[in-house]
Amino acid sequence: MSELKNDRFLRALLKEPVDKTPVWIMRQAGRYLPEYRATRAKAGSFMDLCENADLACEVTLQPLERYDLDAAILFSDILTIPDAMGLGLYFAEGEGPKFKKPVTTAAQVKALGIPDPEDELGYVMNAVRTIRKELDGRVPLIGFSGSPWTLSTYMVEGSSSKDFAKIKGMLYSDPATLHMLLENLAESVTQYLNAQIRAGAQAVMIFDTWGGSLTPETYQTFSLDYMQRIVDGLDREADGRKVPVVLFTKGGAQWLEKMADTGCDALGLDWTINISEARQRVGDKVALQGNMDPCVLYSNPDAIRAQVKQIIDDYGEGSGHVFNLGHGIHQHIDPDNVKVLVDAVHEFSAK
Amino acid sequence: MSELKNDRFLRALLKEPVDKTPVWIMRQAGRYLPEYRATRAKAGSFMDLCENADLACEVTLQPLERYDLDAAILFSDILTIPDAMGLGLYFAEGEGPKFKKPVTTAAQVKALGIPDPEDELGYVMNAVRTIRKELDGRVPLIGFSGSPWTLSTYMVEGSSSKDFAKIKGMLYSDPATLHMLLENLAESVTQYLNAQIRAGAQAVMIFDTWGGSLTPETYQTFSLDYMQRIVDGLDREADGRKVPVVLFTKGGAQWLEKMADTGCDALGLDWTINISEARQRVGDKVALQGNMDPCVLYSNPDAIRAQVKQIIDDYGEGSGHVFNLGHGIHQHIDPDNVKVLVDAVHEFSAK
Repeated sequence: MSELKNDRFLRALLKEPVDKTPVWIMRQAGRYLPEYRATRAKAGSFMDLCENADLACEVTLQPLERYDLDAAILFSDILTIPDAMGLGLYFAEGEGPKFKKPVTTAAQVKALGIPDPEDELGYVMNAVRTIRKELDGRVPLIGFSGSPWTLSTYMVEGSSSKDFAKIKGMLYSDPATLHMLLENLAESVTQYLNAQIRAGAQAVMIFDTWGGSLTPETYQTFSLDYMQRIVDGLDREADGRKVPVVLFTKGGAQWLEKMADTGCDALGLDWTINISEARQRVGDKVALQGNMDPCVLYSNPDAIRAQVKQIIDDYGEGSGHVFNLGHGIHQHIDPDNVKVLVDAVHEFSAK
Repeated sequence: MSELKNDRFLRALLKEPVDKTPVWIMRQAGRYLPEYRATRAKAGSFMDLCENADLACEVTLQPLERYDLDAAILFSDILTIPDAMGLGLYFAEGEGPKFKKPVTTAAQVKALGIPDPEDELGYVMNAVRTIRKELDGRVPLIGFSGSPWTLSTYMVEGSSSKDFAKIKGMLYSDPATLHMLLENLAESVTQYLNAQIRAGAQAVMIFDTWGGSLTPETYQTFSLDYMQRIVDGLDREADGRKVPVVLFTKGGAQWLEKMADTGCDALGLDWTINISEARQRVGDKVALQGNMDPCVLYSNPDAIRAQVKQIIDDYGEGSGHVFNLGHGIHQHIDPDNVKVLVDAVHEFSAK
């Protein structure tokens, strides 16, 4: 493997000194970029794009050509695991992800296997290997997965959901079935992320997009406990370097201390907490990644620069900060505004 | 006015002793009740139902016939004020509220008037007077309004929104225009709630449904500061009794201390915080209303009773708790489960 030329991102996740705050953007390879839309159009469906290692690599690298980003993230979907279990993932135009065969009974949960990361999910590992090779040490590559709770919401509801009626009905009336599903998912995600690390991922992130829909007690029991199992089960070294693990629960700002106690290396933050307060609360346990409101990018260069500076100032002295948005970049953002953000992070944080 | 026969709700909001914890349910007059659906069908549109004082009264009282509730809440919509400003509220089937004429420019904001609560909004006051008369002192009547921030999201976006692109674009790039809009709304809401109090509302609640989409700084500046103006401007006594004010920011559990400092009497809580922790944080400043996950009602009587008991136990000794859900009841809940909840609150809290 080529030597890593820019390791600012990995160093910051481990709270090691850096010359500038590293920056990447959730969903940085996405629909706001015209070159992404062009590749997507030639690929066919969204899953066709994910399953084609060369095209997945192409879109992964596109934002690095435009912006001075400090990390690349595997282009894939969070629902690859349930799809590999046979639930039949598809995307209805304008409606988000759906499953042809949702899982709603104990018998259906019991029948689910653990997908083999190099077989049913081999296309993801091929993409990781291809991207890592093409990156040629330019910046580190991030692998990722959805959290067990977040995956289970889609698997039980059959689609994205506003109120989580079905899965919470199961949670409150048949918790044993939900725990059986989450146990499977914790094991499946662990194997999946370890395979990504073997294939070349240099850091991994677990997206708990819907953990914030839970109560404090059910967050602990039905989301965090299963992320803990994954953190415990990950192979956290590759190429003689530590592979940092980032946990991100959207809407989870109240539970940062508990998340930090899992032994992960960093926490993703949404924008509902001041990063200075978050840092005080987690102390030296973890690095922090975030946390600009993605909607700031709808404004103008002056406003974007002011918000970037504020977050960098709020984080304060010392390493341990990876700049990012508090959630994925939106579809209708002007790509020029992203350049303003990325450059401002490096400018305002330079020593 | 008839003497109030059950004042448990008002007493708990003022932290005065009560024999049992009072309970009501957000959106208790709603689509989960077959009798509501029948009245709605004969009314015509949703707004026709709101504008007909007799039918609005009929649906307001329906849940009191089924359940041993300790308060009634005016049947109306949170978007009556922008509708009265001429934005043209309508409801597209399955899509939620929309405005024919959203407000997006400074000139449009400047042109907005303050609706006269007894003229353009007279139908709401007629409903309050009719309901108060029909209640005949059985339980207190709650009046309500959307918060300025929450109203402004619909007015600028033109509909409900997932990402608040337009209003946050305005917030970050043209804050002066948004402040002008929020100043108008704070004044309009104050006049509207004071008129409801004069017409017979015995407590008022401000619904800040979308405050949780903001950062800590912008929550303070664009939502809480304007709710503060309303709290300061309300006539908080009627019929020789105090009229308690409840603030509810969904997703606002991080900001309870600031909300309590407004001088309101109580805070509504969603289910993302344990009520015991919330009580510790706000101390004696305010009462607390909440906070069961509405999805518990998808389960079964045993699970519902266990969750009710847990929340009552978590709140602990002493007055100052009004039991409620953490958000409005969902459409597909079994009405029998609501009876289980209401009866369990009284059973487990009885001295």
